Amino acid sequence: MIKSTFYLAPGTKLPQQVEIDQVSSLLATGKGLLWIDIEDTTSEDAQFLIDLFRFHPLAVADCVSKNIHPPKIDQFEDHLFIIVHGINYHVETDVVETTELSLFLGKNYVVTSHDIPMRSVTSTIERLQVDGRPMRRGADMLAHDIIDALVDNIMPTIDELDDKCTSIESEVVEHPQRETLRSITQLKRSILALNRVMSPQREIVNTIARGDYAVVGKKAQIYYRNIYDHLVRIETLVQGLRDLADSALAMHLSSVSNRMNEVMKVLSVVAAVFLPLTLLAGIYGMNFVNMPELQWRYGYFVVWGVMVLVALSLMVFFRKRKWL
Amino acid sequence: MIKSTFYLAPGTKLPQQVEIDQVSSLLATGKGLLWIDIEDTTSEDAQFLIDLFRFHPLAVADCVSKNIHPPKIDQFEDHLFIIVHGINYHVETDVVETTELSLFLGKNYVVTSHDIPMRSVTSTIERLQVDGRPMRRGADMLAHDIIDALVDNIMPTIDELDDKCTSIESEVVEHPQRETLRSITQLKRSILALNRVMSPQREIVNTIARGDYAVVGKKAQIYYRNIYDHLVRIETLVQGLRDLADSALAMHLSSVSNRMNEVMKVLSVVAAVFLPLTLLAGIYGMNFVNMPELQWRYGYFVVWGVMVLVALSLMVFFRKRKWL
Amino acid sequence: MIKSTFYLAPGTKLPQQVEIDQVSSLLATGKGLLWIDIEDTTSEDAQFLIDLFRFHPLAVADCVSKNIHPPKIDQFEDHLFIIVHGINYHVETDVVETTELSLFLGKNYVVTSHDIPMRSVTSTIERLQVDGRPMRRGADMLAHDIIDALVDNIMPTIDELDDKCTSIESEVVEHPQRETLRSITQLKRSILALNRVMSPQREIVNTIARGDYAVVGKKAQIYYRNIYDHLVRIETLVQGLRDLADSALAMHLSSVSNRMNEVMKVLSVVAAVFLPLTLLAGIYGMNFVNMPELQWRYGYFVVWGVMVLVALSLMVFFRKRKWL
Amino acid sequence: MIKSTFYLAPGTKLPQQVEIDQVSSLLATGKGLLWIDIEDTTSEDAQFLIDLFRFHPLAVADCVSKNIHPPKIDQFEDHLFIIVHGINYHVETDVVETTELSLFLGKNYVVTSHDIPMRSVTSTIERLQVDGRPMRRGADMLAHDIIDALVDNIMPTIDELDDKCTSIESEVVEHPQRETLRSITQLKRSILALNRVMSPQREIVNTIARGDYAVVGKKAQIYYRNIYDHLVRIETLVQGLRDLADSALAMHLSSVSNRMNEVMKVLSVVAAVFLPLTLLAGIYGMNFVNMPELQWRYGYFVVWGVMVLVALSLMVFFRKRKWL
Amino acid sequence: MIKSTFYLAPGTKLPQQVEIDQVSSLLATGKGLLWIDIEDTTSEDAQFLIDLFRFHPLAVADCVSKNIHPPKIDQFEDHLFIIVHGINYHVETDVVETTELSLFLGKNYVVTSHDIPMRSVTSTIERLQVDGRPMRRGADMLAHDIIDALVDNIMPTIDELDDKCTSIESEVVEHPQRETLRSITQLKRSILALNRVMSPQREIVNTIARGDYAVVGKKAQIYYRNIYDHLVRIETLVQGLRDLADSALAMHLSSVSNRMNEVMKVLSVVAAVFLPLTLLAGIYGMNFVNMPELQWRYGYFVVWGVMVLVALSLMVFFRKRKWL
Repeated sequence: MIKSTFYLAPGTKLPQQVEIDQVSSLLATGKGLLWIDIEDTTSEDAQFLIDLFRFHPLAVADCVSKNIHPPKIDQFEDHLFIIVHGINYHVETDVVETTELSLFLGKNYVVTSHDIPMRSVTSTIERLQVDGRPMRRGADMLAHDIIDALVDNIMPTIDELDDKCTSIESEVVEHPQRETLRSITQLKRSILALNRVMSPQREIVNTIARGDYAVVGKKAQIYYRNIYDHLVRIETLVQGLRDLADSALAMHLSSVSNRMNEVMKVLSVVAAVFLPLTLLAGIYGMNFVNMPELQWRYGYFVVWGVMVLVALSLMVFFRKRKWL
Repeated sequence: MIKSTFYLAPGTKLPQQVEIDQVSSLLATGKGLLWIDIEDTTSEDAQFLIDLFRFHPLAVADCVSKNIHPPKIDQFEDHLFIIVHGINYHVETDVVETTELSLFLGKNYVVTSHDIPMRSVTSTIERLQVDGRPMRRGADMLAHDIIDALVDNIMPTIDELDDKCTSIESEVVEHPQRETLRSITQLKRSILALNRVMSPQREIVNTIARGDYAVVGKKAQIYYRNIYDHLVRIETLVQGLRDLADSALAMHLSSVSNRMNEVMKVLSVVAAVFLPLTLLAGIYGMNFVNMPELQWRYGYFVVWGVMVLVALSLMVFFRKRKWL
Repeated sequence: MIKSTFYLAPGTKLPQQVEIDQVSSLLATGKGLLWIDIEDTTSEDAQFLIDLFRFHPLAVADCVSKNIHPPKIDQFEDHLFIIVHGINYHVETDVVETTELSLFLGKNYVVTSHDIPMRSVTSTIERLQVDGRPMRRGADMLAHDIIDALVDNIMPTIDELDDKCTSIESEVVEHPQRETLRSITQLKRSILALNRVMSPQREIVNTIARGDYAVVGKKAQIYYRNIYDHLVRIETLVQGLRDLADSALAMHLSSVSNRMNEVMKVLSVVAAVFLPLTLLAGIYGMNFVNMPELQWRYGYFVVWGVMVLVALSLMVFFRKRKWL
Repeated sequence: MIKSTFYLAPGTKLPQQVEIDQVSSLLATGKGLLWIDIEDTTSEDAQFLIDLFRFHPLAVADCVSKNIHPPKIDQFEDHLFIIVHGINYHVETDVVETTELSLFLGKNYVVTSHDIPMRSVTSTIERLQVDGRPMRRGADMLAHDIIDALVDNIMPTIDELDDKCTSIESEVVEHPQRETLRSITQLKRSILALNRVMSPQREIVNTIARGDYAVVGKKAQIYYRNIYDHLVRIETLVQGLRDLADSALAMHLSSVSNRMNEVMKVLSVVAAVFLPLTLLAGIYGMNFVNMPELQWRYGYFVVWGVMVLVALSLMVFFRKRKWL
Repeated sequence: MIKSTFYLAPGTKLPQQVEIDQVSSLLATGKGLLWIDIEDTTSEDAQFLIDLFRFHPLAVADCVSKNIHPPKIDQFEDHLFIIVHGINYHVETDVVETTELSLFLGKNYVVTSHDIPMRSVTSTIERLQVDGRPMRRGADMLAHDIIDALVDNIMPTIDELDDKCTSIESEVVEHPQRETLRSITQLKRSILALNRVMSPQREIVNTIARGDYAVVGKKAQIYYRNIYDHLVRIETLVQGLRDLADSALAMHLSSVSNRMNEVMKVLSVVAAVFLPLTLLAGIYGMNFVNMPELQWRYGYFVVWGVMVLVALSLMVFFRKRKWL
C-alpha cells in the first residue's frame, strides 16, 4: 500500500504530496526528486513499481515477500536496490526483532518499502514536512538520511542489552538460578543475531562510501562513510557485549560449582562432628555386664566433657582449613 | 537410466518428449533446447553422454559413482559441470541426508543426473508439461529453475530443525536426561553437516551470478544472484541454529550441575537435621549408673522438646540460606 | 637404493626395465619417458640424481633426510619437486602414520623417492608391467597416477576412523570409563593430524590443476583437478569426523556428570530414609525412667508401623521427584 | 575550548603562542607550522574550525560528540582526520578506560582535540617549549610525536595487567574464591577491550607508514613504521595476556573441582570409618535376653580392641588409596 | 660492544679479523665481504653504525633497546634490517625464552647484533675460521647461514616440549594433581609463545624467498625457501603440540571428575550398607516392655544372620551396578 508520495519540484524548497497518477509524468521530466514510501507492499504495488520504474521483478518480489532477507545491495543499470535491517527490541519479551527496509535509489527518485511502520521513515517524513531539507540535497542524501536514522535507532537497543548484561552479572554473583542461565543464553542469542546482521550491513555501506556506485555522488559518499563509522562502532560494542555475556556464562558455571563446594563442606563438617560423638554415645549404650566406666560416679559427665572437647577441636580444625 | 528427454523446437511453445536416437540429430542443428534427465546413472548412460556430448570422462564418472562429491563447478570448453546438494531430512531418524544433483549446462542443452528421484527435478518437469515456460527462456534459465527448486526445498528442513531445537530446549529446562544430550549432539551434527554443504554451494552460485561463465547469459545472472541471496539467508539461519544448539548444550550441562546441587542440598539438610538428634537420643541411651536427667519426671518430654526445637531452628537456618 | 628404472621408448607400448648406466644416454635423447623409483634414498643416490638430472641439492637433501617435511611444491627451471603425504593407519595401535613421497617431475622423466615401500608406487608398477598404460600418457600423467593412488589409499583410513568414532560413542553412552576418554583424545589427535596434512596437500594439487606449472599439460590438469576434488571430499569427511569426536567428548563429560548425579541421588535417598528411622529407634532406646510409650502393650508394633509408613512415604516422595 | 595555539615562524627555532585572531592570517601565508590544541571541544570551536580550515562538518562533529568513536583515518583533499585511542588504566577500579585523540593533519598545521587532558599532548607541549624540536621537523613529524607519546603511554598499562595476572594466578592456586573469578573475568574483559582498540589502530598507522597519504612525507613514514612496530609488539603482549587470563580461568575451574574432591574424600573417610564402628556399638546395645558376648568378662574391652583395629586398618587402606 | 669483525678480501679464501678503524676504508672499496658482530649493543656502537653504514637511527635504536621486538623486516635503500627470534628453553624452569637477533644485510656486509651470546652466531664463526665457506658465497648466503643455524636450534626445544607433553599425559592418567594442572598451563603457554613468534618469522622468510628484496640474489632465494620450509614444519609440529596440550587439559578435567565419581560411589556404598544395619541394631536396642523377639532364644543370632544377608545382597547389588 503506497503510504505517501513526495515530490520536490526543481527550484522549490518544500516537497509536495502528489497523486499516484501524476508520478509517471513527473518522472518523465527527469528533474526534481520523487520519494515513494510503501508499507506492507502488495502485488499490485509491485506491478506498479515494475511498470513505472522498470525495476527487476526479483527485486520487487523481495519487497512483497514476508521472508527474511539478509542485508544486501544489488546494482542495476540506473538504480540500486538496497536491503538494510533496523532493530526492534522489546525488553519485556527479551527478543531482538529485526525489521527490513528495502530501498530503491535512482538518480531522481527513492522508493522505500517495509512491512511494518518504521521510525526512521516517519521521522524523516516529519523533518521533510518542516523544512524540506532531507529532499533538497538529492536522492543519494535522502537515502542517506533514512538509513542514518535507521542506524541511529540501533544504539538504544545496545544500551538496553548492556543494562541487561550488568543486571544478569550481579544476579549471577548473588544467587545464580536456572532462570539466570536462561537469561544469559537468551541474551547471547540476541547479541549473536545482532552481530550477524551488522557485519553484512557494514560491508554494504562501505561499498557505497567507497564510491562503487555511480548513483551516489562524491559529496554524499562522505556521509555514507559516517554511517559506516557508526556501524563499526556498533559492531565494536556488540563484540564487547558478547564478551560480557560469555564471562557471565563462565561465572554462572563457576558460581554453581562454588556453591556446591560450600554445600559439601557443610555436609562434611556435620558428618565429621556428629558421627564420632554418636559412636561415643553408642559405646556407652552397650549392654556389657563388665563396663567399668558405667559405674564411675562422674562417668556420664566425663563423657559429656569429652564430647564437647572433640566437637570443639574439630570445629577449630575445620575453621583452620577454611571450611567454616 | 535415462528417465526423460525433452526437446523444445525453435519457435514452438511446448517441449516434446523425444526418443534417444533422435537426440543426436536434434543436437546437430544447434538450435532449440534439449533436456535429458538421468536417474541412477549406469556406465552405459555414461558412454552415451561421452559419445554424444563429448563430456569429459572424469565428470561423467562423478555422475556414475555413488560416492559423495562436495558441491563444485567445472568449466569445460563449451559447457559447465555443476554438482549441487539438496537436503533430505527425515524427522523420524533425525538424520540430515544429502542428495547430489549433477548438472551439465551447455548452450542448448541441460543434462541432469541423480541417484534417487529428486523433488526439484520432478516439479520442474511438471511445470514444463503444463506450459513449457521453464524451457522457453533458454538452457541457463532451465538450469536455474532446477537449482532454484532444489534450494527452495531446503527451507522446510531448516524449519523442522528449528522446531526440534525449541523442543529440546524446553526439555533441557524441565527434565534433562541422557537422551537429551544425544538429541543435542545429533542436532548439532545435522546443523554442521548442513553448514558444510551450504557454504561451497553459495560460492559456486556466486561465481555463476558474477558472470564468470560465458554459458550463462546476462539476464540469467540476476536470477542466479537471487539463488545466491537465498543461500546466504539459509546460511544465516543455519548459523542461528548453531547458536541455539550450542546454548542448549551449555544449558544442559549447567542444568545437570544445578540438579546435583539440589540433591546435595537435600542430603546435607537431612544429615544436618538428623545427626544431632540421633546423637541426643544416643546420649540418653547410655547406661551410666549416674545420669540425673534420666530420673527427672519430665526428662523424656524435655528431650522431645529440645529435639523439635533443634530441628525447627535448623530448618529456619537452611531456609534462610535458600537450601530448602 | 634405486629399486627400479623403467623406460618407455618412443613408439613402443611396454616400458622396459633398464640398467642405471644406460639412463644417462637415454635421457640425453630427450625422448621417451623415464621413471626411477628410489626407496630409502642414500647419499650416493642423492649424488647420482644431482649429477644426472642437475636437481637442486636442497631438494635432494629433503629426500635423503628422515625428518618430516610438510607437503610442498617447488618449481625449478625445467622440473617440479613435490612432497605429498600418504596415510598408514594401524588400527591396533590407534596411530595415524604419515608416509612421505617425494617426486621430481620433468618433461620426460619422473623420479620418486620414499623411505618405506608405498602401496601407491607398487600398484602403479604392477599396472605398468601389465599394459604400460600409466607411462604411455606422458610424465605428468604418470605422476598423476601415483599421486591419485596415494590419495585413494587415504579413504579406507577415514572409514576406519569413522567406525572407531561410532563404537566410542556407544561406549560413552553405555559405560564411560577412563579408557574411553583416552580413546577419544587419541582419535581426535589422529583426526587433527590428518587435517593438518590434507589442507596443504589440497592447495598443492590445486596449483597444479590451475595450470601454474608448464611441466603439466592442459589435458593432465583436468585429472589433477579430479585429485583436488577427492582431497576436498576427504577434508569434508575429516571435518565431519572432528565434529563426531568433539561431540563424543562432550557426551563423555556430560555422561560422567549424569552418573555422579545418579550416585548422589541414591546416597541422598538412603540417608533421607534411614536417618529418621534410626532417630526413632534411638529415641525409644533412651533410658528415661518415665517414658509412657515403652509401657504400652503394642508400643513396639506401633513404632514398626510408623517406621514403615515413614519409609514408604519418603519413597513415594522421591519417586515423584524422579530420584528413584 | 581552545587551550593553546603554537606557531613556528619559518626560519625560527622556537614556536610562539599566538592569539586566536592571528591564526587566520598566519595560515594564509602557507608557511611556518601551526598547532591548535582543543580540550572538550564546544560547538563554537567546531564552527571556528570549519570556518578557518574548511574541515568537513562530520569530522568536526566527531570531535564535539562525547560518543566513543573507534580508531579511524579519513582522507580529505588537503588534510587527514585521524582518531586514535590512548589508554587510561586505574588499578583501583580495575577498569581500562579509553581516551580518544582526534587529530587533523594538514601540510602546515596540526589540530588536536580531546575530551580530557591527555599526557601525550601535555608532554609534547613541554618538550616544545624547551627547544621547539617537535615542531621544527614539519607537521607530519609533530603528529608523529604526539601519537608516539600516546602509544608509549600504553606500555605501563600492559605491565600492570601483567602483574595483576600473576597475582591472580597465585591466588587461584592458593585459595580460589568467588572474588577471584570476578577478577579473572574483569581482567579478561580489560584485555579484550585493549585488543579491540589496538588492531584497528595498528592498521591505521600501517596505512600512514605505507605512504598512502601525500600529507605524510617519505622521511616521516619510517617513523610511523616505528609506531606500527610498537603497536605490533603491544598486540603480541596483549595476546600473551589473553592466554594467561584463559589459563587462569581454566586453573580456577579445575582448582574448585580439586577442592571439592578433597572435601568429598574427607567426608567419605569419616563415614567409612565411623559408620561400621557405630553399627558395632549398636549391636551390643541391643536388648536380647540371650547375647553371650555381653556376659564375657572382657567382652567390652574386646569390642574396643576390634573398633581400634577396624579404624586403623581403614585408615591404612585409605592412605594407600591416597585419600588422606 | 663489537665482538668480532671479519673481512674476506676479494679473491682470497679465508676471512681475516680486522681492526675497527680499517673497516671504513675496506667498505669504501665496495668489494669483498665484511661481517661485524656486536653483542650487547651500546649507544657508542649505535653511533658507529650510523656514521659508517648510514643505517637509520630507528633501526639502530631497536638493536640498543632491551625491549622485545617482534620479528620484522624493514627495507632501506641499499640494505635490509631483519629481526628474527631464536629460542632458549630451560627445562628446569619450564620457560621458553626468546632471544632476538638483529641483522643488517647489505650488498657486501652483514652486521649482527644480539643481547646475549647466541649459538647460531658462534657456530657460524667457528665454521668461518675453519674454511671460510660461509663468507665465500656472498652477504646474502652469510645471512642465510646465520638464520638457518638459528632456526635449526629451535628443533631440540620442540622435542623437549614433546617429551614433556607425553610425561604430563601419563601423569594425568595415573594420578592427576594440582601441580599437573600447573604444568599443563605452563606448557600450553610456552607453546602459544612459540606459535606467536614462529608465524611472523615464517612470513618474513617467505618474502625473502619470494625475491621481494634486491639484496638477496636468485641463488640464495632457494636457500631461504629451505628455511621457510623448516619454519612451516616447526609450525606444524607446534600445532600438534597444542593439540596434545589441549587434550591433556581435557583429560585432566575429566580425570578429576572420574575420581570424584569413584569417591562418591564408595561413600554411597558405605552409607547404603551400614545405615540399614545400624537401624536394625537400633530397633532391638529399644526399651519397649513388650518386644517378643528379644525373648527368643536365638533372636540375637537371627539378627546377625539378617545383617550379614542384607550386607551381602547390597554388595552384590552394587557390584552389578559396577559401583564396586
